[in-house]
Amino acid sequence: MISYRKELWFNTKTRRNYINITGDVQEAVEKSRIREGLCLVNAMHITAGVYINDDELGLIKDYDDFLERLAPHEPVSGYRHNLTGEDNADAHLKRQIMGREVVVAVTDGRLDLGAWEQIFYAEFDGRRRKRALIKIIGE
Amino acid sequence: MISYRKELWFNTKTRRNYINITGDVQEAVEKSRIREGLCLVNAMHITAGVYINDDELGLIKDYDDFLERLAPHEPVSGYRHNLTGEDNADAHLKRQIMGREVVVAVTDGRLDLGAWEQIFYAEFDGRRRKRALIKIIGE
Amino acid sequence: MISYRKELWFNTKTRRNYINITGDVQEAVEKSRIREGLCLVNAMHITAGVYINDDELGLIKDYDDFLERLAPHEPVSGYRHNLTGEDNADAHLKRQIMGREVVVAVTDGRLDLGAWEQIFYAEFDGRRRKRALIKIIGE
Repeated sequence: MISYRKELWFNTKTRRNYINITGDVQEAVEKSRIREGLCLVNAMHITAGVYINDDELGLIKDYDDFLERLAPHEPVSGYRHNLTGEDNADAHLKRQIMGREVVVAVTDGRLDLGAWEQIFYAEFDGRRRKRALIKIIGE
Repeated sequence: MISYRKELWFNTKTRRNYINITGDVQEAVEKSRIREGLCLVNAMHITAGVYINDDELGLIKDYDDFLERLAPHEPVSGYRHNLTGEDNADAHLKRQIMGREVVVAVTDGRLDLGAWEQIFYAEFDGRRRKRALIKIIGE
Repeated sequence: MISYRKELWFNTKTRRNYINITGDVQEAVEKSRIREGLCLVNAMHITAGVYINDDELGLIKDYDDFLERLAPHEPVSGYRHNLTGEDNADAHLKRQIMGREVVVAVTDGRLDLGAWEQIFYAEFDGRRRKRALIKIIGE
């Protein structure tokens, strides 16, 4: 069995952002030299997530509206968590809906994705350095 | 380490549908001859998902109502993604709530599931050929 | 390849409860003697979940309010599933939002978690014995 680990770092200019990391993950699979296995990609922070869906700008805006409707940022005082001095309770909820992680099959040395599947890092409380983890096991 | 890969194909008659695939996944585990490992099952499309819950018709209807309440299909014009000519933006959102994938332990050559756990393929934009991926690694 | 399996048992006094199990999972990783691999943690019941987020009491209450707003327990008659004699349809929906499982990387014999990541067992229909599964593979 081989294993491979890599961190991806982000520092988004806006509070919320959706970044396509499919190329970075594919590159990690190639560097790992793993031909058959499983690839985990997860946010290492609890106000960000990793998910798979379409790289289409309208859809990304639809997700953002949807999440803001379910767990609005304002009023900040509407969340108990923000009594700790934070203003990011909504980010914890939003990330929970989109998911912390994805697991993708590795087949023949490549990510085994459907035609339109793209891996995204979803930032809900950005404007500081944060990271995602890629861990691949297989052989 | 052994790995095994199999695709399941679907073509639902209705836009939305929930199909119990536990038997198909268990069959794949048996064919893989893997005794101990992990089994990934994921939709290969971004308007469908794979989830685990009860095979009870009332509950499936409750899920369907719940998803339609959170992300209604109509009005189609309510989503930016549909400006691309699609009418399935709601399906992308619904799948994100239910999840793209499940990972199930394989123990003693069988899916290591609780008594009521059943694996479902959830279709949110059907009436065409679509598929799910089973990937098992272990030994 | 090595594999390791352990069950954690719970019996919460309240219907809903959120229990930090990070220490139990780390202990399982140590017992497994696996240095590099993947660790799956999942609820074995369909009215409970496993998720990763902050161990902060205000946030946990925010999650609980959020879930109760999206899928309220009352009126029990508002769900078709409850026509079977159950009163826990809301618990099936709540768990689906929070997630059934997490997959965590194992690196250098430890859970490869970010600074604030904590693993929780989320109970939505407690007051009886229920369990979660830890399955680790690697070497």
